Amino acid sequence: MNAEKAKRPPSGPRAALKRQAIVQAARELFLKEGFGVGMDAIAAAASVSKVTVYNHFGSKEALFTAVIAGALDESLAEPTAALGELVEADDLRSSLLDAARHWVRSVRADNDVTALRNLVAAEAHRFPELGRGWQHHGPEGHHPAVAHALRTLADRGRLTIPDLEPAIIQLYALLVFPHIVFDLYGTDIDDDLTDRLVVSGIDMFLGFYSPQPAS
Amino acid sequence: MNAEKAKRPPSGPRAALKRQAIVQAARELFLKEGFGVGMDAIAAAASVSKVTVYNHFGSKEALFTAVIAGALDESLAEPTAALGELVEADDLRSSLLDAARHWVRSVRADNDVTALRNLVAAEAHRFPELGRGWQHHGPEGHHPAVAHALRTLADRGRLTIPDLEPAIIQLYALLVFPHIVFDLYGTDIDDDLTDRLVVSGIDMFLGFYSPQPAS
Repeated sequence: MNAEKAKRPPSGPRAALKRQAIVQAARELFLKEGFGVGMDAIAAAASVSKVTVYNHFGSKEALFTAVIAGALDESLAEPTAALGELVEADDLRSSLLDAARHWVRSVRADNDVTALRNLVAAEAHRFPELGRGWQHHGPEGHHPAVAHALRTLADRGRLTIPDLEPAIIQLYALLVFPHIVFDLYGTDIDDDLTDRLVVSGIDMFLGFYSPQPAS
Repeated sequence: MNAEKAKRPPSGPRAALKRQAIVQAARELFLKEGFGVGMDAIAAAASVSKVTVYNHFGSKEALFTAVIAGALDESLAEPTAALGELVEADDLRSSLLDAARHWVRSVRADNDVTALRNLVAAEAHRFPELGRGWQHHGPEGHHPAVAHALRTLADRGRLTIPDLEPAIIQLYALLVFPHIVFDLYGTDIDDDLTDRLVVSGIDMFLGFYSPQPAS
């Protein structure tokens, strides 16, 4: 009975509140002190016992993954909604520009998500689970929405995409990867160049994947 | 006299050999133990005194920057040469594909440079000098060669590039950033998808920046 209990995270409204308090405390402490922060410090900040933290999350990696998942869900909600509207768009270029600007803004924002991204980058080679957690909740979490939008646009004849996988990566590459890479080395791309990259990236993408007029 | 001597790194053939031994030892130890490794351990591995290490480099950041510079120079020699040949090319697409494959291969290689890149990513926010050193010897070091190649191709009427800065970043973005970002989170892009990305990235870039036939 006890072994069973230890494996399942506690449930119910009180447990949910505790869980939320632990994730919130962990987010603040990971950001302040890095992944090396102790589970007892997190437990103390959440006003629960260390045993409760382990009952809920099992390990520090799992707790960190929960922190990532929460932060990325918040940050990707708006860009994912913008992608959803895209497939219904009359003016594809203008809707793509709009979705791209939302997406780039969320990637460039100086917030917990970007700080967590840099923390994952710093620790992913020592703790591969963190890198996988990020991939799963970030790029792969967003990826189905991007894939769905591109596939729907292709089905409706608005785009011609013979090979979907590179097309998805190219959209990320043209729009968000420059910001991730520059930020990684502690530099950034200014607002003006950011917008020139969005406009020219979308035009390049559309130029390549728009149906060619019959000749 | 002594203060003066301490500021200038030692010169001469014997000093150059010592410098080389220190950089080599530092490279191995940084890769094995991270940026936290002690200067005395590096001195011992290079069979010199800690004072000699400081006379040559002044600080651990400066020594790390010298390690980065050496490794990147080795790794970028081949792609930079391929870019140089590009501007003379008869068949622009095939030469661009060739240069792109060299470049992508050097970025994907599982060698000291990629390991150092991840180490810089891990430490750049705590030690901004490392991020700046990497930018200076890496992207910015390569950047003039890319800028020169694109500008020359534009001057000769082979490409039409109204805004050079985004074009440079887009070339990096389509070809190398996906590998840097995926590697960062401990995943990678397989050989087959890598080549589909190169071919389709180059075609997309050329489609956008090739001179349009008069209509």
